[in-house]
Amino acid sequence: MGITDVSGVRLGHVTLDGPGEGVRTGVTCVLPHRRDLLEHPVVAAAHVVNGFGKPVGLTQVVELGEIETPVILTNTLAVGAAHEGVVRSVLARSPDVGRPRTVNPVVLECNDGRLNDLRALAVRPEHVTEAVRRAEASSDGAPVQEGAVGAGHGMVAFGWKGGVGTASARVVDGARAGTLGCLVLTNMGRPEDLVVHGRPVAERPAGVTRPADGSVIVLLATDAPLDARQLGRLARRAQNGLARTGVLTDHGSGELVLAWSTATPRHRRDGDWLRPWFCAVADVVEEAVLSSMRHARTVTGRDGLTVERCPAL
Amino acid sequence: MGITDVSGVRLGHVTLDGPGEGVRTGVTCVLPHRRDLLEHPVVAAAHVVNGFGKPVGLTQVVELGEIETPVILTNTLAVGAAHEGVVRSVLARSPDVGRPRTVNPVVLECNDGRLNDLRALAVRPEHVTEAVRRAEASSDGAPVQEGAVGAGHGMVAFGWKGGVGTASARVVDGARAGTLGCLVLTNMGRPEDLVVHGRPVAERPAGVTRPADGSVIVLLATDAPLDARQLGRLARRAQNGLARTGVLTDHGSGELVLAWSTATPRHRRDGDWLRPWFCAVADVVEEAVLSSMRHARTVTGRDGLTVERCPAL
Amino acid sequence: MGITDVSGVRLGHVTLDGPGEGVRTGVTCVLPHRRDLLEHPVVAAAHVVNGFGKPVGLTQVVELGEIETPVILTNTLAVGAAHEGVVRSVLARSPDVGRPRTVNPVVLECNDGRLNDLRALAVRPEHVTEAVRRAEASSDGAPVQEGAVGAGHGMVAFGWKGGVGTASARVVDGARAGTLGCLVLTNMGRPEDLVVHGRPVAERPAGVTRPADGSVIVLLATDAPLDARQLGRLARRAQNGLARTGVLTDHGSGELVLAWSTATPRHRRDGDWLRPWFCAVADVVEEAVLSSMRHARTVTGRDGLTVERCPAL
Amino acid sequence: MGITDVSGVRLGHVTLDGPGEGVRTGVTCVLPHRRDLLEHPVVAAAHVVNGFGKPVGLTQVVELGEIETPVILTNTLAVGAAHEGVVRSVLARSPDVGRPRTVNPVVLECNDGRLNDLRALAVRPEHVTEAVRRAEASSDGAPVQEGAVGAGHGMVAFGWKGGVGTASARVVDGARAGTLGCLVLTNMGRPEDLVVHGRPVAERPAGVTRPADGSVIVLLATDAPLDARQLGRLARRAQNGLARTGVLTDHGSGELVLAWSTATPRHRRDGDWLRPWFCAVADVVEEAVLSSMRHARTVTGRDGLTVERCPAL
Repeated sequence: MGITDVSGVRLGHVTLDGPGEGVRTGVTCVLPHRRDLLEHPVVAAAHVVNGFGKPVGLTQVVELGEIETPVILTNTLAVGAAHEGVVRSVLARSPDVGRPRTVNPVVLECNDGRLNDLRALAVRPEHVTEAVRRAEASSDGAPVQEGAVGAGHGMVAFGWKGGVGTASARVVDGARAGTLGCLVLTNMGRPEDLVVHGRPVAERPAGVTRPADGSVIVLLATDAPLDARQLGRLARRAQNGLARTGVLTDHGSGELVLAWSTATPRHRRDGDWLRPWFCAVADVVEEAVLSSMRHARTVTGRDGLTVERCPAL
Repeated sequence: MGITDVSGVRLGHVTLDGPGEGVRTGVTCVLPHRRDLLEHPVVAAAHVVNGFGKPVGLTQVVELGEIETPVILTNTLAVGAAHEGVVRSVLARSPDVGRPRTVNPVVLECNDGRLNDLRALAVRPEHVTEAVRRAEASSDGAPVQEGAVGAGHGMVAFGWKGGVGTASARVVDGARAGTLGCLVLTNMGRPEDLVVHGRPVAERPAGVTRPADGSVIVLLATDAPLDARQLGRLARRAQNGLARTGVLTDHGSGELVLAWSTATPRHRRDGDWLRPWFCAVADVVEEAVLSSMRHARTVTGRDGLTVERCPAL
Repeated sequence: MGITDVSGVRLGHVTLDGPGEGVRTGVTCVLPHRRDLLEHPVVAAAHVVNGFGKPVGLTQVVELGEIETPVILTNTLAVGAAHEGVVRSVLARSPDVGRPRTVNPVVLECNDGRLNDLRALAVRPEHVTEAVRRAEASSDGAPVQEGAVGAGHGMVAFGWKGGVGTASARVVDGARAGTLGCLVLTNMGRPEDLVVHGRPVAERPAGVTRPADGSVIVLLATDAPLDARQLGRLARRAQNGLARTGVLTDHGSGELVLAWSTATPRHRRDGDWLRPWFCAVADVVEEAVLSSMRHARTVTGRDGLTVERCPAL
Repeated sequence: MGITDVSGVRLGHVTLDGPGEGVRTGVTCVLPHRRDLLEHPVVAAAHVVNGFGKPVGLTQVVELGEIETPVILTNTLAVGAAHEGVVRSVLARSPDVGRPRTVNPVVLECNDGRLNDLRALAVRPEHVTEAVRRAEASSDGAPVQEGAVGAGHGMVAFGWKGGVGTASARVVDGARAGTLGCLVLTNMGRPEDLVVHGRPVAERPAGVTRPADGSVIVLLATDAPLDARQLGRLARRAQNGLARTGVLTDHGSGELVLAWSTATPRHRRDGDWLRPWFCAVADVVEEAVLSSMRHARTVTGRDGLTVERCPAL
């Protein structure tokens, strides 16, 4: 169960263990739907829970209510390389881009600099084009690799190993049913913050010194024909799911949410039919966060630091 | 008279006519103040007039109310290279960046793809580090090179040659006086839109085919001790100055405003003392737009297209 | 030509010259469309140019993208009475309101306290229900009474008599055509700010002492099937029209824009077809502001202050 | 322990059981600090979690970063009466208001229409002036009456009796210490949503039919010299505390947060010192919600409906 349960959503990971010692980073590409994105963007919205982050592309997503490229997740200093990777990927297939139309890459990041040698700038544009290629080659509905993979390779959540997590839910809202998928990149929190289904976790990781600021990225995808404003309402409920896992939205934790629909919006007045969607948002975000930790494995990185898999999950 | 009248603000341009035929682009670096920015960020705000743009860094500027890097202007597909250039420049001087603290580059762009061969991706990170170096080497108060220079090299305003423009004003607000500086990157509008000090311009450029979407970037700098919220109020008045020149805020025109203060904020309740500041914002934005065209020269670029200097200015 | 050119939009004014000397105020009711609003709200958006204002109802308009009541314009201290008037009017016709569903009145205001004895609190809920009744009794397409009428009775624009103004435009956007109507309540600016079609106005009003802070309310209505996000983009262009008339968006000038469509939204990607709409927004706002002054008559109010009709219009 | 632990914050309740059967409503006035508010507003921020609400005054709070009147809580249809009550209260003491300066009342509401006969419009302006008078007469640090009192009289939380709740925390942020107080008005949620310190509540209320949409208002007060932007960051963390109690931010639940400081802001860069403040926000919001239910008593209202006190608290 994951974001690829929304038909057309596909993923590609590139995981980097070098060049250079202490490189533990990567790239994750999420294709929002099956069609050519430049010609057929998906309807979308973005929400900033805490803006201590370095996203690219959200300004235009908010203005136009659409995403026209793959969504790239990576480390905080690789945003530029990721942008260029998407641009190169688009130029390669679209001869009219740059003549003079432009394109709006969407890149989201967390800081994996505890495990990863950020200063190596290991992520290059070609890793991003490769992640796009792998996503495109992925078959529909393929299960998501989670944990310490792709952009999640070097991420740390609540002092334990975090990374990529996913979950999905089937939503029935009266007359209609649909799927809500979620993918998170978890890199936030301190050990004492973690709550699993209402219970604080007593275990404390051995190796971790004072945790640096983290971040968490939340992607929400659905096949329901919601419009951009309604997707924005969904996005603003992601914080409820994060809070259930103990996330405090720290000063330095960039918490950003991107939501899209693979369907063409049909006008439907907001009403009580949204409640099951809002419930589902909190549920899938909570489950995706926990899943990112459940599927992580212990990783040793820069300067010999080891971040363990959380045994309570 | 220009943005460098605000003490400490400095500029560096890198103008590119290659490699490759049809490259007419560049980079402009603006240093917000004289001190080390990572240790001493400037207080800042951002405003989106029309979000059809690809800015980097504004999310964090809005959240924290500060800028901690040089501000880079460049072409729309060079955002990634510019981001990496700033990162490289910061890594070179700050050994603790990436260990694990991160940094928030601020990059703003317009689409120079009518005159410039965008697909060449001519702007590289080293052009950005060079622009930063030039800005740092610039002496305080040095006049700003305007027009078809740096990021302005390939820009088109109202069908005429646009680019970099600047203006400044001395503001007396009762008990206090200060300077307001403005720098714009103009790349918006159609010939029939242009208004110069209230008068429509009858001339029409010879060479221009149907203008593509454009954009305009506005930077506002002051030495008055305003806080981030007050700077945001200034930023939202930039649209008044743009409108005076005939800007219609087209669908595809990314219109973004960044405002900062070189002073430490002192608490002062908002009041009528803001009127001269708000007047000055409209004035300096209007003058900077006109100045960008007045100082431009005719440029021939990609596919032999020539964009003329506007003779009415 | 005015906002009632959008089929279904109707107006009702109540103008008050008492009780008590120095009362020069009133209420203007705008019905967004012909159908029952509670059951069939109009799709809508709001934009705050300068938030020094006391609107009611905009928070929900933004969240849900709809207006479910008449829109009321009145003086700044009458917001409460206007709210209660709308509530009484809704309760009278809808037995299920309060059982327990609620309703979201929309009230917008300017400060007419130079000409009007604000402290008299002359506007009562029954004046609002009467304005609603008059609007409902108005025939479709009836011309709008402008100037010193209804909520415009005591308003002052650029030191001259302002008030209610209206304008409309026919918009052709390629495959589709529609009407854009505008109604403004003008109460902003200083004599030296006023610009009429690009020309500053040399005349100065005789009677006015230093103008207080003002405000301007802009209503935009269309029959084009735009969605709430697109209406928001229209609303953000109103500032361009205001700026053309010399509006500086003063500190104390509450400048608020409300936009709605009488049609059911149909999904259409944003594109260049929006340009004629954005041009029309600036045009109708400029014309409505000038029309509010052109149709005003000289009014003498509180403490014998006379505000003259601007002879340049 | 409550919001009155922030020195200068005072409260006044007016609870109404008539006139007319089935009236169960009221008014709560919170004075943000001890000084004259018109002359000495408090620095403030507002945040909309879910905008299905009818607040008055927030637009100006956001623009100017200040509150200049008492804060009034009441029922959803009493917003107009509350506005007029504040206006009358201000006019009575400030002869220059309306000559022509205006004032910005702040009114927040929830829908108590399940227990209360909303259609009676029982809250009148004089109840609001009386609540203001009682707050002014209250001594510094007086304990807060919680539960089914004032604006809380008719409110329903998670299907149980809700209403007014309060909590406070002492915050040490390194060099500095301060107090954070919270007051909530709870009227949201369904029985199956409620979570008490991580544990779902098995009990179900007997009398309640399908719950209507609810709302929750959160007030945060501190004596720390934060500026408006920083208070906005605190306000955005209130959702974390709400989520801990199981709040799902339903479609029809207006969830609004108002935060202010009784101190004059001193410039301090955002940094890790904010973490204890952000932790405290989630804590006091959670505790205030639970406290509103713990202190509530069973109330029987309109049409004989009884809403019980939650026995699990």
